Amino acid sequence: MNTSSVQDIARQSRVAARQLSSTSEAQRNLALSKMAESLESVKVQVLEVNAQEVMKAQQDGQSAAMTKRLTIDEKVLQYMLLRLRKVAQRPDPLNRVLQGHTNPAGLKVYKKSVPLGVIGIIYESRPNVTTDAAGVCMKSGNAVILRGGSESLQTNTLLTDAMIEGAADAGLPQHAIQIIRTPGHEAVGELLKMDEYVDILIPRGGKGLIKRIAEGTRIPVIKHYDGICHLYIAEDADPAQAVDLVINSKCQSIQVCNALETLLVDKEYAEQILPLLQTAFNSNNIELRGCEQTKKILPGISLATEDDWHTEYLAPILSVKIVNGIDEAIDHINHYGSGHTDGIVTQSLKMAQKFEQQVDSASVLINASTRLSGGGDYGLGSVVGISTDKLHARGPVGPDELTTYKWVVYGDGHLRN
Amino acid sequence: MNTSSVQDIARQSRVAARQLSSTSEAQRNLALSKMAESLESVKVQVLEVNAQEVMKAQQDGQSAAMTKRLTIDEKVLQYMLLRLRKVAQRPDPLNRVLQGHTNPAGLKVYKKSVPLGVIGIIYESRPNVTTDAAGVCMKSGNAVILRGGSESLQTNTLLTDAMIEGAADAGLPQHAIQIIRTPGHEAVGELLKMDEYVDILIPRGGKGLIKRIAEGTRIPVIKHYDGICHLYIAEDADPAQAVDLVINSKCQSIQVCNALETLLVDKEYAEQILPLLQTAFNSNNIELRGCEQTKKILPGISLATEDDWHTEYLAPILSVKIVNGIDEAIDHINHYGSGHTDGIVTQSLKMAQKFEQQVDSASVLINASTRLSGGGDYGLGSVVGISTDKLHARGPVGPDELTTYKWVVYGDGHLRN
Repeated sequence: MNTSSVQDIARQSRVAARQLSSTSEAQRNLALSKMAESLESVKVQVLEVNAQEVMKAQQDGQSAAMTKRLTIDEKVLQYMLLRLRKVAQRPDPLNRVLQGHTNPAGLKVYKKSVPLGVIGIIYESRPNVTTDAAGVCMKSGNAVILRGGSESLQTNTLLTDAMIEGAADAGLPQHAIQIIRTPGHEAVGELLKMDEYVDILIPRGGKGLIKRIAEGTRIPVIKHYDGICHLYIAEDADPAQAVDLVINSKCQSIQVCNALETLLVDKEYAEQILPLLQTAFNSNNIELRGCEQTKKILPGISLATEDDWHTEYLAPILSVKIVNGIDEAIDHINHYGSGHTDGIVTQSLKMAQKFEQQVDSASVLINASTRLSGGGDYGLGSVVGISTDKLHARGPVGPDELTTYKWVVYGDGHLRN
Repeated sequence: MNTSSVQDIARQSRVAARQLSSTSEAQRNLALSKMAESLESVKVQVLEVNAQEVMKAQQDGQSAAMTKRLTIDEKVLQYMLLRLRKVAQRPDPLNRVLQGHTNPAGLKVYKKSVPLGVIGIIYESRPNVTTDAAGVCMKSGNAVILRGGSESLQTNTLLTDAMIEGAADAGLPQHAIQIIRTPGHEAVGELLKMDEYVDILIPRGGKGLIKRIAEGTRIPVIKHYDGICHLYIAEDADPAQAVDLVINSKCQSIQVCNALETLLVDKEYAEQILPLLQTAFNSNNIELRGCEQTKKILPGISLATEDDWHTEYLAPILSVKIVNGIDEAIDHINHYGSGHTDGIVTQSLKMAQKFEQQVDSASVLINASTRLSGGGDYGLGSVVGISTDKLHARGPVGPDELTTYKWVVYGDGHLRN
């Protein structure tokens, strides 16, 4: 078992990244399929080791939600393999010519996509990040340094070792995929100092983890913060469609970043639609917290405070506000939202287009569930997360988002006058 | 004269940015031409005020190079106006559909370019940054907060007021262009805290300024660090072309980021080409510092130290190293270079392609002067700088690089299963 120092790992990753940048699409795709194959061959061990770690977490008094996230069963494992194989089928994100021209003097200039280099992924509990992240990084020709939660260290190590073997089988460099095997916070601290070798860090987990990492390093960080997602029901919304969209956005899955957290209802429509919504929410056990106007129509609910508008509940709670038209809805979203995913329900083209233009979010939806925002429904395949940053990657982060570009210039002795 | 607090300015910029994001291409281009017109009408005042500031700088004992950078004469002013008018003629960077598809369920998804929002530009001495930055920001629909050096505060303020008037004439929001009028470091410190309102900071100036800003703020920073630029002369390079390219790369302009700083010469070719180069450098008054092998061929020159390979001289000094083939050249560049601009002189397609693929720099040149890297020769028009970052923008930063994107989804009541 390799227990290299974090600095050794980072340095080896840098070397591997240089080699990866020259690999062919065929080689990287072969590696992905060999990685899946190799994982399949250690399936029994993975399920065993994971079951032990899950039992340990239960004994340590971890929550049911946490141990569920930690668990790999046959179905989860098959899904992990499927995603590796699917990412292999995606178009090559590398060596795409993004733009180019020949200038009047005959100088040929073009811009082409290249890997970012070395990517560090720091994540909590979900072992599927191990395979998803390694898959997306190999697809995009980046060396990856993995660092999962200590509660799944054995599972993650086993998964990584199998993938390393598969990748090496396809001729990828030995250190293309690495995992930090030393437990404890110190190793993460070391990784944060490796700005000489690591091009980008992607933390996956709670807000606290992300903040700690972003503030503790000079390495650029792609951040995946809150999803304070909104739906605005315009006065002309189809009532049945509005109810279906709101319920699906809130209830299809509660603890996810693209679940609905605040509902905005046009004041002209509130008396008609709110009682219908309340009935639907009651049967889904969702607690409503409303503005004063909302409480006039639904007197039984509690009053929302200023804090509620700022809150990503990730729980069966929804804040409800009555707004005076689309402008107030847009202002509310741009002020209180997190720029993740926000939608409108309307039949008006003009309102749809205004909402599309003026809401400053990574995903803007018209007559669609907020739960549809993300890699899968956007046709990106596997992603390493949903960025709430505006720079570089916004929204789902897949293989394309893990590339940068270089300018290539071919001359024939061209000089500057 | 408006002396709003930095926080007021930042808040107003945020509001202006929302409005700018909905302006049409025609309106933004009209604004650019009105900005140039308005500047032209205050030309005499600008030259006067600038002459006073230049005189003050001279009295304060500033270097000739610095006062030269500070000076606006008729020619510089005409060039500033020309660049504003030229950026107006460029294609619209906004509302480009970058990708899109309709999924099997009929959900329409596309990704379109949108402004970043509020951009802060912190710069030293050169007043032309005032007009270049405002031009690139209006083109790309971003609100801009300018903060120039105190030695050119009056000039910059006058330029900005004229541009504000021109932009307002074309119907752009009142606070689309703002300048911080308070002198002193404190105001910059305040701006660095405005992460609630400012989306990105672009410092233009020395390494010290950039470092101070990048380390003192949570706002993302596009950094424009060193240009430690290399040329590698392969063993098969045409000798006359090699000499011309090396001399042009080093001597066409000395104090610029894409000037040559280190020359790498293949060992098979060194005895033939180095004496030719030395003659050419002597007549251009360039001091050479060579590795031990170089000194064997050119005994009169001084020995380069480890520091020399890490140095961006911005001065008539060049470090010279003899390397054992293209692999050593690439390793040297990737290790000592700054990822800005690096080139090869060769007649071999295989070597050209290997260099293109393996050198990890923003610009990779084949048989072209390093001085050709940048916005103009790449067909980008006006730029706000050359990024040495890999994330978001790499190389020249023009209007396109000051955009982000949003995902837009049109459904018809689409739910997640």
